[in-house]
Amino acid sequence: MILVLNGPNLSQLGARDPAVYGSATLDEVVAGAREEHPELDVFTSESEGELITRLHAARTDGTRAVVVNPGALTHYSYALRDALELLDVPKVEVHLSQTPAREEFRRTSVVSPVVDVTITGAGAYGYRLAVRAALHLADAR
Amino acid sequence: MILVLNGPNLSQLGARDPAVYGSATLDEVVAGAREEHPELDVFTSESEGELITRLHAARTDGTRAVVVNPGALTHYSYALRDALELLDVPKVEVHLSQTPAREEFRRTSVVSPVVDVTITGAGAYGYRLAVRAALHLADAR
Amino acid sequence: MILVLNGPNLSQLGARDPAVYGSATLDEVVAGAREEHPELDVFTSESEGELITRLHAARTDGTRAVVVNPGALTHYSYALRDALELLDVPKVEVHLSQTPAREEFRRTSVVSPVVDVTITGAGAYGYRLAVRAALHLADAR
Amino acid sequence: MILVLNGPNLSQLGARDPAVYGSATLDEVVAGAREEHPELDVFTSESEGELITRLHAARTDGTRAVVVNPGALTHYSYALRDALELLDVPKVEVHLSQTPAREEFRRTSVVSPVVDVTITGAGAYGYRLAVRAALHLADAR
Amino acid sequence: MILVLNGPNLSQLGARDPAVYGSATLDEVVAGAREEHPELDVFTSESEGELITRLHAARTDGTRAVVVNPGALTHYSYALRDALELLDVPKVEVHLSQTPAREEFRRTSVVSPVVDVTITGAGAYGYRLAVRAALHLADAR
Amino acid sequence: MILVLNGPNLSQLGARDPAVYGSATLDEVVAGAREEHPELDVFTSESEGELITRLHAARTDGTRAVVVNPGALTHYSYALRDALELLDVPKVEVHLSQTPAREEFRRTSVVSPVVDVTITGAGAYGYRLAVRAALHLADAR
Amino acid sequence: MILVLNGPNLSQLGARDPAVYGSATLDEVVAGAREEHPELDVFTSESEGELITRLHAARTDGTRAVVVNPGALTHYSYALRDALELLDVPKVEVHLSQTPAREEFRRTSVVSPVVDVTITGAGAYGYRLAVRAALHLADAR
Amino acid sequence: MILVLNGPNLSQLGARDPAVYGSATLDEVVAGAREEHPELDVFTSESEGELITRLHAARTDGTRAVVVNPGALTHYSYALRDALELLDVPKVEVHLSQTPAREEFRRTSVVSPVVDVTITGAGAYGYRLAVRAALHLADAR
Amino acid sequence: MILVLNGPNLSQLGARDPAVYGSATLDEVVAGAREEHPELDVFTSESEGELITRLHAARTDGTRAVVVNPGALTHYSYALRDALELLDVPKVEVHLSQTPAREEFRRTSVVSPVVDVTITGAGAYGYRLAVRAALHLADAR
Amino acid sequence: MILVLNGPNLSQLGARDPAVYGSATLDEVVAGAREEHPELDVFTSESEGELITRLHAARTDGTRAVVVNPGALTHYSYALRDALELLDVPKVEVHLSQTPAREEFRRTSVVSPVVDVTITGAGAYGYRLAVRAALHLADAR
Amino acid sequence: MILVLNGPNLSQLGARDPAVYGSATLDEVVAGAREEHPELDVFTSESEGELITRLHAARTDGTRAVVVNPGALTHYSYALRDALELLDVPKVEVHLSQTPAREEFRRTSVVSPVVDVTITGAGAYGYRLAVRAALHLADAR
Amino acid sequence: MILVLNGPNLSQLGARDPAVYGSATLDEVVAGAREEHPELDVFTSESEGELITRLHAARTDGTRAVVVNPGALTHYSYALRDALELLDVPKVEVHLSQTPAREEFRRTSVVSPVVDVTITGAGAYGYRLAVRAALHLADAR
Repeated sequence: MILVLNGPNLSQLGARDPAVYGSATLDEVVAGAREEHPELDVFTSESEGELITRLHAARTDGTRAVVVNPGALTHYSYALRDALELLDVPKVEVHLSQTPAREEFRRTSVVSPVVDVTITGAGAYGYRLAVRAALHLADAR
Repeated sequence: MILVLNGPNLSQLGARDPAVYGSATLDEVVAGAREEHPELDVFTSESEGELITRLHAARTDGTRAVVVNPGALTHYSYALRDALELLDVPKVEVHLSQTPAREEFRRTSVVSPVVDVTITGAGAYGYRLAVRAALHLADAR
Repeated sequence: MILVLNGPNLSQLGARDPAVYGSATLDEVVAGAREEHPELDVFTSESEGELITRLHAARTDGTRAVVVNPGALTHYSYALRDALELLDVPKVEVHLSQTPAREEFRRTSVVSPVVDVTITGAGAYGYRLAVRAALHLADAR
Repeated sequence: MILVLNGPNLSQLGARDPAVYGSATLDEVVAGAREEHPELDVFTSESEGELITRLHAARTDGTRAVVVNPGALTHYSYALRDALELLDVPKVEVHLSQTPAREEFRRTSVVSPVVDVTITGAGAYGYRLAVRAALHLADAR
Repeated sequence: MILVLNGPNLSQLGARDPAVYGSATLDEVVAGAREEHPELDVFTSESEGELITRLHAARTDGTRAVVVNPGALTHYSYALRDALELLDVPKVEVHLSQTPAREEFRRTSVVSPVVDVTITGAGAYGYRLAVRAALHLADAR
Repeated sequence: MILVLNGPNLSQLGARDPAVYGSATLDEVVAGAREEHPELDVFTSESEGELITRLHAARTDGTRAVVVNPGALTHYSYALRDALELLDVPKVEVHLSQTPAREEFRRTSVVSPVVDVTITGAGAYGYRLAVRAALHLADAR
Repeated sequence: MILVLNGPNLSQLGARDPAVYGSATLDEVVAGAREEHPELDVFTSESEGELITRLHAARTDGTRAVVVNPGALTHYSYALRDALELLDVPKVEVHLSQTPAREEFRRTSVVSPVVDVTITGAGAYGYRLAVRAALHLADAR
Repeated sequence: MILVLNGPNLSQLGARDPAVYGSATLDEVVAGAREEHPELDVFTSESEGELITRLHAARTDGTRAVVVNPGALTHYSYALRDALELLDVPKVEVHLSQTPAREEFRRTSVVSPVVDVTITGAGAYGYRLAVRAALHLADAR
Repeated sequence: MILVLNGPNLSQLGARDPAVYGSATLDEVVAGAREEHPELDVFTSESEGELITRLHAARTDGTRAVVVNPGALTHYSYALRDALELLDVPKVEVHLSQTPAREEFRRTSVVSPVVDVTITGAGAYGYRLAVRAALHLADAR
Repeated sequence: MILVLNGPNLSQLGARDPAVYGSATLDEVVAGAREEHPELDVFTSESEGELITRLHAARTDGTRAVVVNPGALTHYSYALRDALELLDVPKVEVHLSQTPAREEFRRTSVVSPVVDVTITGAGAYGYRLAVRAALHLADAR
Repeated sequence: MILVLNGPNLSQLGARDPAVYGSATLDEVVAGAREEHPELDVFTSESEGELITRLHAARTDGTRAVVVNPGALTHYSYALRDALELLDVPKVEVHLSQTPAREEFRRTSVVSPVVDVTITGAGAYGYRLAVRAALHLADAR
Repeated sequence: MILVLNGPNLSQLGARDPAVYGSATLDEVVAGAREEHPELDVFTSESEGELITRLHAARTDGTRAVVVNPGALTHYSYALRDALELLDVPKVEVHLSQTPAREEFRRTSVVSPVVDVTITGAGAYGYRLAVRAALHLADAR
């Protein structure tokens, strides 16, 4: 099982600025990713605390890898970073938009230094790439 | 309906440092604002996630405008900022104290660039001004 | 009497970038504000020195409060700041545009720490809010 | 009663990087601290909002002092800081690891300026020292 | 008509540090520039406010282009910058000395982002180049 | 045809710090990527100028997309950035190592703001992901 | 003759925050300084431009030295700095308060690098010291 | 003979973002400049090393002055700067676009401190102005 | 034996700003600490060099642990830091006041990264905590 | 008695760069100062610790005021700053050269915020001014 | 064999600013260094790419150590740094001038962290010292 | 005679972190350096003041050159810097470790700008190189 974790505001995909994020809803994005691997456990929350709690559970529930899009928590949530760091499976960070080309604050990810792979800018397709990367890393262990 | 959103620690108004925040409780502040406009939907939470969820709901519940006092989330919650940004109604940020005259960290609002109006320093009366500004902007659409 | 002080380039309102500043002239903006309170003494100048001199006069001419839009002096005129600071009446800073959403240099106001209230982004209507805030503060003394 | 407040990821103690945090679980750490003083009210949460709510409750539930380990919230949660600041009892901040010797972001605590005492680097034993400090300060009032 | 605007201390040219600014007086510099184009309207002032007022007048007096040497106002006068920005004719900034090779503060021009062309370091001859550039841009409209 | 562009020191892959970059040679990395798409035109150079020249050629030689690993030029070559920016096909930046987890200077890419997608940390497999992303973007045009 | 130049807001001495600036008026301060040397030519203005013009006049009116208190222009007026720099007589900068002990912005003087002597914190007596220093330097030429 | 040196990506003029750089090709730009002075030796390269070598040759080949557009090397090539600095003829830096009005990194030129004149923003016409400036400086020696 | 090392100005305790440092003299502070452990070797000096020499001696005189209050050397003495670093016993840094709540320069300790434990803000009682921590660490070796 | 305290390298006055510091020896400088007031107790040392110890003694030996030239300790010795701060008599800081006009590091004094008066740039005569200021402040108590 | 690598502009030694770099040509500098060790393989280029290629060759051609003067590439060429880092022989960086005493940008070497030894300021003699250091380190392996 | 000056903690060489500093004692390091030149006057102290006093003595005791390893004073002792600057003989700074490859604070030397030569990273052998450099410079005078 691969855990797919989505942070704040990703629940609103499709409605939010389609020029930046695309017009697919989160369900559609996940459906695309399932074409790469059907066994995805998707967890989406607006709450930093709930995301952390879900990651703790992944330590003992057979999760083989994590694909994580922390939303704007990317830029300041050292608590989420710590939760990711203490989870010992491959971790792939994904962002729909090309964050380095946007506002200054979006250019820093406090999460990147503790994940294995980061993929930005590929839109919904980025989730497919992220799942592939996660599988590849999990198989290599 | 105008949504009035209050962030962390605003529930404690009246008890907290009256020299800075005034002695009115949050209920009294809101009562004052209702003199400007009776149809205020007030939501107060200590939780970033709950505030974001409430803002998402406002996309479809007929909210005409938002008055928001994010409390200390003002200074770092890019997640709240994103939630405000994707909500397409007039938005007014209000702070009771004159934040630019206080500690260094209070001088930066990550929320200001995505709202229409910011009002600081007018104490409880600032909520009245904010409601008026929100009405004015909503009427102008 | 409330002193309404306008700094450099505000005399050109209406002609200047209407998308940012609106299409009302300064006279029209002031006329709107007079609906809140008829006794406004309006002083407009391109000169830092004249603005300071006018503020000094306010110490003895019965001015009850000041509404000030320092224009671009907002961002560097510590001399204007000192003149405001030594004037012991309520002071309200107002900007037509939402300055925190514009160029980097417009995000810092050297004046904000010495005024009571700051209002940004409400356009011509901001002057009305500023006058109300000034009256409220003056009445509370 | 002394309130012992633990923030994000502290629930995972023992499992997390033992070279940095030691091998004791949070229960064991608290048990040690109880040898200093049996009346500890322990509250642990991954959620900033819940931690703040718990601190608000302490204003009226007879709490004599607070020992707080905010986890990674230490480095950015101005909301938690405000909640601590408005609580008028002695407050002791404790960190298991010597945070000034670790990553750059761990060297700044936004909480330290509003607590009375900070203790870093003493591992599980730091909780015992923190409880003693809290008692000492509470007795001195 | 091309408006040639000179800021603080340029009236003292010839007397001021000839190694840096050359030995020509301002009259001589302008005379040279008139060889490129006789219709120059020259305005020189030590006062930021007067310079701004003169620029406002240029909006309606048939000025086809502006050549501006703001002197030291270059480095901090956002008010002058705003006055230039709202004037819709070609604008050429000129400095006698090679400012990027001098003191740190002279390396930043707050005016450059709102003019069309900047010319530095060519001494009195720079005014001739600036007039040519202004003519070229005005003709191209 | 997809152009795969490799910058300085990538010719030495396999020999260079295998713990960071893996033990595969560049030929082996490319062979893996060819499994995703056989038509890869690979160009490798230690010279910024040659890389830029090769990108210029891609404007007229039928290149459908670019996969680029600029090596250390990533961190300072604005000339390479400009060459990428003026090439109007999908562009994918790839790095073998997780650059955000390494030295400070490796955390900034001057190239990222002008490419469509960035992938870091997936080792040799990252080239496969990059080729897939490039194909996906090219097909979507 | 020694020129004593006073910048913005110094005309209000006595009324302005006596705890910081003392209770003497500017006339009283000058009267004290005249006890050191009767031939003082005092010029006070709120206007940067007028101060600069006065300094230009000092190049040819027999001024032997300058004592200057630029008020808040100290912190940003590079134009005043240039006017002082091109005047070839001894120059003494004086501030009534101990500026390095006050707000951050008051700790930088853009004028200090081009004057001979700077005296801060001695209150009205500082003008006497400044006149003495100016005389000493003028006599030493 | 005047050496006209063009750096990376200038060979692509006309094709590159015409809104910023104009629609003229480099040949057309140079042809315009030849109207000012026919004896121009034009050297264009994508390679920092070749540009430096060409500048070294100019020390002994009768070059009277240099007009240089370093392209993006402007912002980081201290090696090109050193090559310019050790060449003892008049040097004029030219940029087609108004670089101070563009991205942050384009606002700093490491070359400007070692050339005599800098001209930005005049488009193709800037090369004509640069040639005139170079001639003027060469004649003045 | 535990070495207790006190740096500059600690000899003046009791006389120095009691609101910040308490009214106990250094002798009284040490007497309190001796209640935790009688075998304290106290060394107090205003001299960085003497403090370093004393630490060198501790390498061979049977010192089991060090409690150090470096006074203001905390903020810049890399030499003291090096002396502590090369001493291989447990080290506890203690400050009487809550340094993170004071002036900016007091918020950085160059010593903290090379000691095991840091305790701030507990006043004289902090020495008792520090001695306990030192004993605990020494016993654990 | 006024204590005159001289820090590192001031013993070498006269020999050290006369263009900057003048040709007078320290004895000659002091002799000049004695003309203002004969009762000067002069203490000169290269050692931060000795200077601090001397200041401590001044708390009980009848010292009415301090004139201090900390030499290069000015720029980093927070220990000396603390020693000055806890001494409750008027304090005047003096520097022979105009430090704000010299190297960057000389522009910051960590001592200035805790003394009453600072005088720079007046050479040997500055000691005379400093003694006068010290006397004036002592008499005013 | 010891490889001596010279970067941009070193080919011009002797002609370039003799006050800074001395009057010896590069051939003369190398001849001096050969007195320390005759087997020097000297490679000089203006091109970053060629320098990197030469370093790659050194991995297999029996090079025992490298002496490198990267010229101005020192300050920004992370590509050269990477090439040096992956070469597993002793490496000595040498600069003719005392770079820390020159312009700000010359004070940072991106190369220093990956070489064994750095020698600055000894002029032509520095190459002799560098060769000796290289021999010493190579012999010690 | 060449003065060899060693600062804080160098007396402990051999015992201190041999992986960084080598296993030779300071006596052994000096003995090695004496093979280059027997007449070395070695002075070692933990005290900034004593080091400065020793440098002052060198002005008149026939010292021909100085080799100085300031230890950690390198990074902040402007007083030591001044003492070196006013000594008019060749000066060579030496560090055993490659300081630019270590902690951030070790990358800045406040001493380097006032010495002739700096040598880092060559271990004990660096003292031999430093003595040779000192001799070479002294002979060249």
